Amino acid sequence: MENRLIKYFSKLFSLTKEEIDGIIESMEIKKFSKGDFIVKEGSNNKDSFFILEGLVRRFKIIDGEDITTNFYSEEQWILSLTSFTEKIVFSEDNLICMEDTAVVLGTDEKAQELYKQFPRIESLAISTMETIFYEHQKRMDYYMTDTPEKRYIRLLKTHPDIFQRVPQYHIASYIGVKPESLSRIRKRIVSHT
Amino acid sequence: MENRLIKYFSKLFSLTKEEIDGIIESMEIKKFSKGDFIVKEGSNNKDSFFILEGLVRRFKIIDGEDITTNFYSEEQWILSLTSFTEKIVFSEDNLICMEDTAVVLGTDEKAQELYKQFPRIESLAISTMETIFYEHQKRMDYYMTDTPEKRYIRLLKTHPDIFQRVPQYHIASYIGVKPESLSRIRKRIVSHT
Repeated sequence: MENRLIKYFSKLFSLTKEEIDGIIESMEIKKFSKGDFIVKEGSNNKDSFFILEGLVRRFKIIDGEDITTNFYSEEQWILSLTSFTEKIVFSEDNLICMEDTAVVLGTDEKAQELYKQFPRIESLAISTMETIFYEHQKRMDYYMTDTPEKRYIRLLKTHPDIFQRVPQYHIASYIGVKPESLSRIRKRIVSHT
Repeated sequence: MENRLIKYFSKLFSLTKEEIDGIIESMEIKKFSKGDFIVKEGSNNKDSFFILEGLVRRFKIIDGEDITTNFYSEEQWILSLTSFTEKIVFSEDNLICMEDTAVVLGTDEKAQELYKQFPRIESLAISTMETIFYEHQKRMDYYMTDTPEKRYIRLLKTHPDIFQRVPQYHIASYIGVKPESLSRIRKRIVSHT
């Protein structure tokens, strides 16, 4: 399980033996149980998380309604993105574990230490962030231009395990429809395949 | 106008005289006319752009329909995010100038040269990217949880000039409604204020 972060980086660039050892040495693993909040709305979180195992749901409560804005599972990063500022930024959303979850904790302190020891890792961090940002931008563009039905099909292709791992009503809110509409979408897709 | 990039960076961190001179020296300004494409769907673009003056619209053609996914104006970055990979990535969307537009061209080559001369600028680049990514993530979360009416009000607050600078039907497609629905939303808002 611990090797997942190394495997992730190795897909993006080749690491030296020393860099791998440095990353492993700096790794701090945190474990959460199903139902635990990793971040709660209103808290001040500056840490990032790389998921080794488990599933995390990002959501907001809007007018009493729970709306899912993302799912994160194995080999995905949840970036806090507020470490750049010295201001206290209060989270506007929640991160809850839908399963027992293990993450690698990413803090600005740890990153700075690693960069000092291995300056090349700082360049690699930029590339990693670009990769994540690129995926994020694509996801946003698709979300804005897809119908809910297309959003469902895309999720089925990119993240098929989600359908076995979270209740259907969270998937409905993620693609922006009521649970009844999701049932209709599913029936339509089944009858077309 | 040329000072806008320095002004932008200075809001995020304090730059030394040498760093400012280094950035200004490496700056390449490109000018486009209203109607010009900065990037066309299917092209392979690896450059990023910082807008000094003008307005750029990002859009996709889906089943023959033009859907706006973003507007960029003065002091905003358009990141290509594909410079990290050596693979050729074909753009899935278009960037078109809605007005005469001047940008600072950002290339990976220029960035690497700057980092070599001023290693601190590499750390600042990470912070800058985090800032842009953070804003992007917030925009996506809002888009997913807002009704079209709330999206309209948010755009009015964050980017009021857009309403004078682009035709209403682009704003309609950006907030995810037909132009007729946008008229209804506008009437409702006017009657409530």
